[in-house]
Amino acid sequence: MLFESTVPQFIKMLTNLNVLIEKSEAFAQIKKFEIDVLLNSRLAPDQFHLIRQVQIVCDTAKLGVSRLTGKEAPAHADTEKSLAEVKERINSTVTYLKKITANDFAGAETKHIKTPRWEDQYLTGFDYVQHHVIPNFYFHMTTVYSILRHNGVDIGKKDYLGSLPFKK
Amino acid sequence: MLFESTVPQFIKMLTNLNVLIEKSEAFAQIKKFEIDVLLNSRLAPDQFHLIRQVQIVCDTAKLGVSRLTGKEAPAHADTEKSLAEVKERINSTVTYLKKITANDFAGAETKHIKTPRWEDQYLTGFDYVQHHVIPNFYFHMTTVYSILRHNGVDIGKKDYLGSLPFKK
Repeated sequence: MLFESTVPQFIKMLTNLNVLIEKSEAFAQIKKFEIDVLLNSRLAPDQFHLIRQVQIVCDTAKLGVSRLTGKEAPAHADTEKSLAEVKERINSTVTYLKKITANDFAGAETKHIKTPRWEDQYLTGFDYVQHHVIPNFYFHMTTVYSILRHNGVDIGKKDYLGSLPFKK
Repeated sequence: MLFESTVPQFIKMLTNLNVLIEKSEAFAQIKKFEIDVLLNSRLAPDQFHLIRQVQIVCDTAKLGVSRLTGKEAPAHADTEKSLAEVKERINSTVTYLKKITANDFAGAETKHIKTPRWEDQYLTGFDYVQHHVIPNFYFHMTTVYSILRHNGVDIGKKDYLGSLPFKK
């Protein structure tokens, strides 16, 4: 169940993140400014800029899944500067996630998840997903959205949510 | 499982939302401005203001759980104007959520969820939670955070995330 509530949804949201980035690119072209301005924008002087927010969205998904499954994630040096590099970071994360299966999550709910920052404490895999991975993932995804929205990029919540799997 | 991934986390996050609101109140007092300025702030002229964002966070939780469980949710007229009313809206939602149990979610995963906007289409309860309720809940919660952060309120991600259930 932890697989279903993370991997497919993260792949979808990261695909939506690419749509947000592409709409920003189009906006910069129409308004005739360098896309780098948006990539380095933030909502407060002591907040991470957009590129760093994208890196954290990707890392939250990548490291979350890696810790839960033990499947090694691709390393990223956090050196992205250009739009192409930002897109590549997102695509590389999606490529990793697409290789993960529900079987990889066997035992993940009760696994002890540790990070260097937590010292000798741990979260169960289940708590890690609910209290940490999911809220952080959407936090940084929405922060990217908010930075773009604040700067006038023509995006709406449908771009964030993507399509819904309706049935009849 | 849908209970565990929604109700307890929504209660926690709405409690964190109250912390964000209280820090805003303190900030307004120190800076000597009317809290109404923050309550009516937004990041773009065609975005909902903060009060409306809070209403939507609450409704996403309340209506989501109500549709999944069939447990009638309290009605709200969306007339909040003051800080006290905004807090009451949050508290009323938490009170409702605290009455919901895991048993109330029996059969929720395969339930056909319909809303007037979706016409004759439906989402399964599981898809409704993953693709709609959770992404929308965190979207509007983070938008409240972003509006406050942009206006200089001294908040950080720890206020948004709240405490983590660490074990040793």
